[in-house]
Amino acid sequence: MDHPENDSEYKGLQVNEGVLPLPSVNPYATFRRKKRLLSAEEYVAGIRGGDISILGQAVTLVESSLPSDQVIAQKVIEACLPFSGNSIRAGITGVPGAGKSTFIEALGTHLCKQGSKLAVLAIDPSSERSKGSILGDKTRMNELSTAANAFIRPSPSAGSLGGVARKTRETIVLCEAAGFNTILVETVGVGQSETAAHSMVDFFLLLQVTGTGDELQGIKRGIMEMADGIAINKCDGNNIERARAARVSFKNALALFPPTESGWKPYVETCSSVEYTGIDDVWKMITDYIAFTQKNGYFDYKRSQQAKYWMYETIHQSLLDSFYHNEEIERLIPQYEQRILNNEISSFIAAHELLEKFKDLKI
Amino acid sequence: MDHPENDSEYKGLQVNEGVLPLPSVNPYATFRRKKRLLSAEEYVAGIRGGDISILGQAVTLVESSLPSDQVIAQKVIEACLPFSGNSIRAGITGVPGAGKSTFIEALGTHLCKQGSKLAVLAIDPSSERSKGSILGDKTRMNELSTAANAFIRPSPSAGSLGGVARKTRETIVLCEAAGFNTILVETVGVGQSETAAHSMVDFFLLLQVTGTGDELQGIKRGIMEMADGIAINKCDGNNIERARAARVSFKNALALFPPTESGWKPYVETCSSVEYTGIDDVWKMITDYIAFTQKNGYFDYKRSQQAKYWMYETIHQSLLDSFYHNEEIERLIPQYEQRILNNEISSFIAAHELLEKFKDLKI
Repeated sequence: MDHPENDSEYKGLQVNEGVLPLPSVNPYATFRRKKRLLSAEEYVAGIRGGDISILGQAVTLVESSLPSDQVIAQKVIEACLPFSGNSIRAGITGVPGAGKSTFIEALGTHLCKQGSKLAVLAIDPSSERSKGSILGDKTRMNELSTAANAFIRPSPSAGSLGGVARKTRETIVLCEAAGFNTILVETVGVGQSETAAHSMVDFFLLLQVTGTGDELQGIKRGIMEMADGIAINKCDGNNIERARAARVSFKNALALFPPTESGWKPYVETCSSVEYTGIDDVWKMITDYIAFTQKNGYFDYKRSQQAKYWMYETIHQSLLDSFYHNEEIERLIPQYEQRILNNEISSFIAAHELLEKFKDLKI
Repeated sequence: MDHPENDSEYKGLQVNEGVLPLPSVNPYATFRRKKRLLSAEEYVAGIRGGDISILGQAVTLVESSLPSDQVIAQKVIEACLPFSGNSIRAGITGVPGAGKSTFIEALGTHLCKQGSKLAVLAIDPSSERSKGSILGDKTRMNELSTAANAFIRPSPSAGSLGGVARKTRETIVLCEAAGFNTILVETVGVGQSETAAHSMVDFFLLLQVTGTGDELQGIKRGIMEMADGIAINKCDGNNIERARAARVSFKNALALFPPTESGWKPYVETCSSVEYTGIDDVWKMITDYIAFTQKNGYFDYKRSQQAKYWMYETIHQSLLDSFYHNEEIERLIPQYEQRILNNEISSFIAAHELLEKFKDLKI
């Protein structure tokens, strides 16, 4: 089995292509062409055989915006679909500084040692701009990134949140078909990425820290009520008492929250990613939730709702794209926004006029 | 000034029309025709003059789905727009049983006595089905519904949430142009109505009760984090101690929440709508918030964001409607949903195929 790092280099090449055209004589060109020789069937066979290198290449196809790549990618996804679904999918969010990378390193290592096959994915639409993206730097997950049972993949970097999330959703299908039975989807707590992640995972974990006083500054409202569980990280050293007190506070707060759709009452656990304490408690919370929802039928219900959600979401995105990517509409929208802000035109008439113009343009 | 009850009768008539055609000889027909004789200019003049009867008729036009009514309605809204905006807009939500009607009765009477002109509107997309809709029965607001300074209007009953919310948003413009300086928008705590209300109000109040143990059963998650303030209602009789304890719990819980976008720290107050205690504290919380956000610029920022939001929201809704109201698409969607649930097709390919079919149908 190839080392997964290969895949990372390849991904880097592809990202650069979008920005600068490659020179005609390029040392990577042959490398790239060689990988492209695979047919959809060969990708599927490789994935089904658990070949992490081929899986990585297939994910790169999924992430590609080239129509020719997308044709193959969709064939591969379709063929993998019947072999997908057999995993625990967990979303993990938390502000920068909550220790997501070290937590995932600790949890992932724990799971791999137990024999799990673990894929770590991410949704971070800002990754291209901000550079310092989550999971962008695998060196932060030293041990895990070299484990044979782990597949770590940074966030797809191109396009809108919808596009990024869709690619992550498709990557889950491929990973599951390759035998990965645990999928972690990491997000930064900025709001919309969490909604997207929430629509593709079974369990949603909020990672909190305490002790800075500013622990919640970066996270958006609404995310706490989305969580199926909270883990108070960095419960070590001088911070143990504070972390335990925070656990009590969060438990009391969650008791005031409306019940979850699943009927599950979210837990709060403390853990330390550096001392490896409480990591198994957090994982037990996740497996307890899975058992609970599988028993009451919510697990399957949620997965079917999610599958339908993605059909509708894709339709919505395509319909909106066809409108907003129209050049004339793009030109007009700032003018209409300004007239609305000046109270010269109502939001509804502005919308109506833009839609009429769009209809005329298409004829 | 006509009594606002006139308007209610007229509305009732229009709703019935949708269900049963009126007999050709109908005692209301002349009444109806007479009202229709008004031109857009006359509606605007009546509204600007503070004529509540004409305001009510104009709102009925806004709520009408007849294209000819909509042409006039949009003209009226456009003409009223420059005179709108000068009010406090507050959303109020809470489960059935939280005492929203009596709370609004108490708060409204308090405000009217202080000289405010108060409009009470509602967003409840379920109102047509469930009949027992919020604000549907004005007798629950005895005192307020006869106050000269109050305009009470049940939720528009027709159509989707988007349609209902849009009509409420447009009604706000008319009410403000008629001189109403306080707008309350009532919703039931089912989630999406609150998001819609949130997109048109300055302040969002969550009304809670305590003492039943099941107080949160009806409300959706996410609403608590949307609230700019919480009022614990029914703080009277045997319930005072419990209400005060709940206040402390909610205050502690809110302290753990991420900061609001406005920088405002949500308050928790207790009140009794039947004993008229704490009502002024709740109102002070709202005016404190308005003063705070006007000072830091968030008030104007949010209003402009909301105005733009409604343009985009209307565009989105129209684009989606054109797709989903297509007969062939309506026929195909259940089949595709089933194939997705059977894992026969990916959500993305299903979406793609439906979009292709839609494109073919339009040519």
